[in-house]
Amino acid sequence: MTSTPVARPDEVRRYNRSSLLRLLHVAGPCTRAALATELGLNRSTIKTLVDGLAEAGVVEERVPRPGRSAGRPSLLVLPQPQAAVVLAVDVQVEHVAMALVGLGGAILGRNSWNLHGRMREPGEVITHVIESTELLAADLGVRPVAGGVSVPGVVRRSDGHVHEAPNLRWSGVALGQRLAKALAVPVVVGNDAELGALAEHVRGAARESSDAVFVSADIGVGGGVIAQGSPLRGAAGYVGEIGHMVVRPHGRPCYCGNEGCWETEVGEAALCRALDLPEDSPRGTIVVELRRLAGDSDAALRQLAEFSEWLTLGLVNVVNLFGPELVVLGDLFTVLPVPVLDAVAEEVRRRSMVSRAIGGVRVELSSLGADVKLLGAAEAAFEGVLDTV
Amino acid sequence: MTSTPVARPDEVRRYNRSSLLRLLHVAGPCTRAALATELGLNRSTIKTLVDGLAEAGVVEERVPRPGRSAGRPSLLVLPQPQAAVVLAVDVQVEHVAMALVGLGGAILGRNSWNLHGRMREPGEVITHVIESTELLAADLGVRPVAGGVSVPGVVRRSDGHVHEAPNLRWSGVALGQRLAKALAVPVVVGNDAELGALAEHVRGAARESSDAVFVSADIGVGGGVIAQGSPLRGAAGYVGEIGHMVVRPHGRPCYCGNEGCWETEVGEAALCRALDLPEDSPRGTIVVELRRLAGDSDAALRQLAEFSEWLTLGLVNVVNLFGPELVVLGDLFTVLPVPVLDAVAEEVRRRSMVSRAIGGVRVELSSLGADVKLLGAAEAAFEGVLDTV
Repeated sequence: MTSTPVARPDEVRRYNRSSLLRLLHVAGPCTRAALATELGLNRSTIKTLVDGLAEAGVVEERVPRPGRSAGRPSLLVLPQPQAAVVLAVDVQVEHVAMALVGLGGAILGRNSWNLHGRMREPGEVITHVIESTELLAADLGVRPVAGGVSVPGVVRRSDGHVHEAPNLRWSGVALGQRLAKALAVPVVVGNDAELGALAEHVRGAARESSDAVFVSADIGVGGGVIAQGSPLRGAAGYVGEIGHMVVRPHGRPCYCGNEGCWETEVGEAALCRALDLPEDSPRGTIVVELRRLAGDSDAALRQLAEFSEWLTLGLVNVVNLFGPELVVLGDLFTVLPVPVLDAVAEEVRRRSMVSRAIGGVRVELSSLGADVKLLGAAEAAFEGVLDTV
Repeated sequence: MTSTPVARPDEVRRYNRSSLLRLLHVAGPCTRAALATELGLNRSTIKTLVDGLAEAGVVEERVPRPGRSAGRPSLLVLPQPQAAVVLAVDVQVEHVAMALVGLGGAILGRNSWNLHGRMREPGEVITHVIESTELLAADLGVRPVAGGVSVPGVVRRSDGHVHEAPNLRWSGVALGQRLAKALAVPVVVGNDAELGALAEHVRGAARESSDAVFVSADIGVGGGVIAQGSPLRGAAGYVGEIGHMVVRPHGRPCYCGNEGCWETEVGEAALCRALDLPEDSPRGTIVVELRRLAGDSDAALRQLAEFSEWLTLGLVNVVNLFGPELVVLGDLFTVLPVPVLDAVAEEVRRRSMVSRAIGGVRVELSSLGADVKLLGAAEAAFEGVLDTV
């Protein structure tokens, strides 16, 4: 059922302030005139808000470089990165990346380490994150006010409980609570594909799309959905597990208990098989082999024919089920030869009823590179911060 | 990105008024005390609102039958069905059902006719709906203030454009606009499974669930999703086509262009095949055969083993993709023998990662019977009405 929140005048002021901050955070420096237009507020309201934020050191104002227009130029308002810094952590199967990210989205400092042996135990990862955060914060002379963590697994968003992260061999880890307690700031934990989708929506290929799906292949395959402008979640805040959609009944067994999950057919190991490489080939080898293939369209299409068919079939299902206008492919999928990607996109448009209805779903590659989940973790942390800066 | 609407004081009043009306519409008669508690408003605000609505003839107040509690009883507030009447139309492959539905959800009068020959042409259906509405409205002495129409097809919600309704052989029908013009009221057109999900959420098995999926089998198979309390839609307001999720690659060809769609494996024709009946057997024959099987658990499980496997596989995917806490099965699925339904539900819980995370998805049968889509069409129409009564 629909519901419309109701606001008192002081709530209106706070709402306007956080809308302005969110706009600066996402769009970067704006003139006062652009802020007024974009937010639908009059100039005097903008002036009051900006003056307040400047006084608090959250924004800075500058005279823009002279342009061609006559008259007094509108002052440029810049978010001050140090005014709100969050910790972002991306736990992957092979390594952990972390960064301190400032208001406006700039990475102020970063750090990463490989996972091996004990380092992969949840306790060790948590300890390392805490120690590295202290060092990084001291180096930069800032303190994070919130944290966001991306985990490749089934995560309960409400309290950051990791139910299952099979590729990490984690289960039942109170990651959010433990980090929040140690760092003494709120910590949001999210599924990696969900946070990838968020990053693409705020800063990437899905910036202009209110209905988009982000699908990414690493060791596993995951997807996150933006529906009507917001991340889609299910019961208890869990997001769907797109990689465990069965596409090939009686296919290869998956650790989830099913056979022929999308992940087993188009994940890293499947790509290795398609390329006649050992299943545990290093990422570099896979990329080199894909680049080599890219030079010969026909050979690429032939060699990856079966892989492409499973990729297509899963995407047709995703498009028919969620009805996005845009599918953003991430990670390993972005390295596929262009003729293969083009053929897959064309088939998805042709074979999905919903794509035909909306006039053709677009299929694009992630533009955020290896940082997509880290940036998503930062944005998840910022969600709770922009109202209170 | 999150956004919080902002309200002026007169908007607050209007918001409270429509919240109160929505509560009465959905929950039925309430005492003033219950309204105050449920809406979080004080008694004097409730009194002002109820007095205004009573004066306008939208509600009536009665002294409740004496109970055991001492003191003056709180007045019972009843919605007046005639205060806001909507037209609901359910276009199915075999017939069209229509009703005038009053505030509070009661069906005030109804009408239906079979589709055969020319009657199935969009123009004929539209003409018949218009004429029947006039007659029904005159009989009842009411005038509908809005309309809702359920269509088994791909529908653009924004303007009621039916892109494709293959089982009706409709395509490119401006159904919403044509009906709205002829009836001179706003008309909402929705996909039948989407409206079924809405009805289950407002009045049926999913009343208490904010994350639920309604899946229904008739000639086709459709599904509607309630996510975080609202109906899920994709780009341009189109909803997903769950029935065209491919579950069996290289399975039977589907008119949508794919092979092995869920619809081809668990729709009415598939159920006929599983029961060794001709594919176009009348509904009555299918139901009789299912009832006969229900008496022998082992025979039912054996006979429907393959059908159940495809039903299970599709539901595992639906649960893994949308993460609902509840799946409501509608129409033909509700007639399946209980041992078969129990086995499917158990397998879905066992085989879906997301179900395991949320502690076990519930699988229930629709309680709204044959009227589910008609009631959903009515609720879609009421959505725009309750703010303006």
